[in-house]
Amino acid sequence: MAVMPKEVQDAFNQMKNVVLATSTPDGVPNVDPMGMKKVIDAETVYISDQFFNKTLANLKENQKVAITFWGDEGAYQIHGTATYINEGEQFEELKAWVDGCFAAMGAPITAKGGVLVHVDELFTCLPGPNAGAKLA
Amino acid sequence: MAVMPKEVQDAFNQMKNVVLATSTPDGVPNVDPMGMKKVIDAETVYISDQFFNKTLANLKENQKVAITFWGDEGAYQIHGTATYINEGEQFEELKAWVDGCFAAMGAPITAKGGVLVHVDELFTCLPGPNAGAKLA
Repeated sequence: MAVMPKEVQDAFNQMKNVVLATSTPDGVPNVDPMGMKKVIDAETVYISDQFFNKTLANLKENQKVAITFWGDEGAYQIHGTATYINEGEQFEELKAWVDGCFAAMGAPITAKGGVLVHVDELFTCLPGPNAGAKLA
Repeated sequence: MAVMPKEVQDAFNQMKNVVLATSTPDGVPNVDPMGMKKVIDAETVYISDQFFNKTLANLKENQKVAITFWGDEGAYQIHGTATYINEGEQFEELKAWVDGCFAAMGAPITAKGGVLVHVDELFTCLPGPNAGAKLA
């Protein structure tokens, strides 16, 4: 369990994309940029699923994930544990937000699910001798 | 084995960053943005190691990797097999290029190794119903 400082939460929310890595249980990774995402609380982030394919297949068998995001606000990496959701009150609220964002863009796209990621560990990935150092 | 079309090779070279995912042998992924990278040939890309940490630990035990890169030029994903190098003629040539790039930026950074990635499969990761479709 790790608590994200406010500046990390802000960075996660403000950056245009984060990048989600999953893996098969025997270590074949998969990685994709993700645009619809938000911080749920200091220990949890959410990434919406519109087009998960290999990612979803991996998540069904292996819940360990890694996320990176970087920009003017910093460069971070989360190691976390994922829970895929596609029903229930929390999902419906998040889907309403995602579908509203796409509607506002005029895009005929809707969420089919999403992944809650519990933050197990937080690292910096700024270049330099401290690259990869654990923050929380 | 997969052959990257020229537009994919150009995208890999031109984008500011690509994102490299590795995994432990038992499926705990790791993911980081990478700035020093180039296409070697239509089936091979190179990512330079200045600050690999968890990535290097994973590569020593598991050579399966995934790479994503996206921008105005497209959005792609490679599944590949990595070979870590830190000696020999090819490495010294690549290190000279990387160290020269950093020197030109005035950055006191040098390459300590690098990873040759053989492209096993190539996918699109543009959003839409074809997200994740195999290209090669």
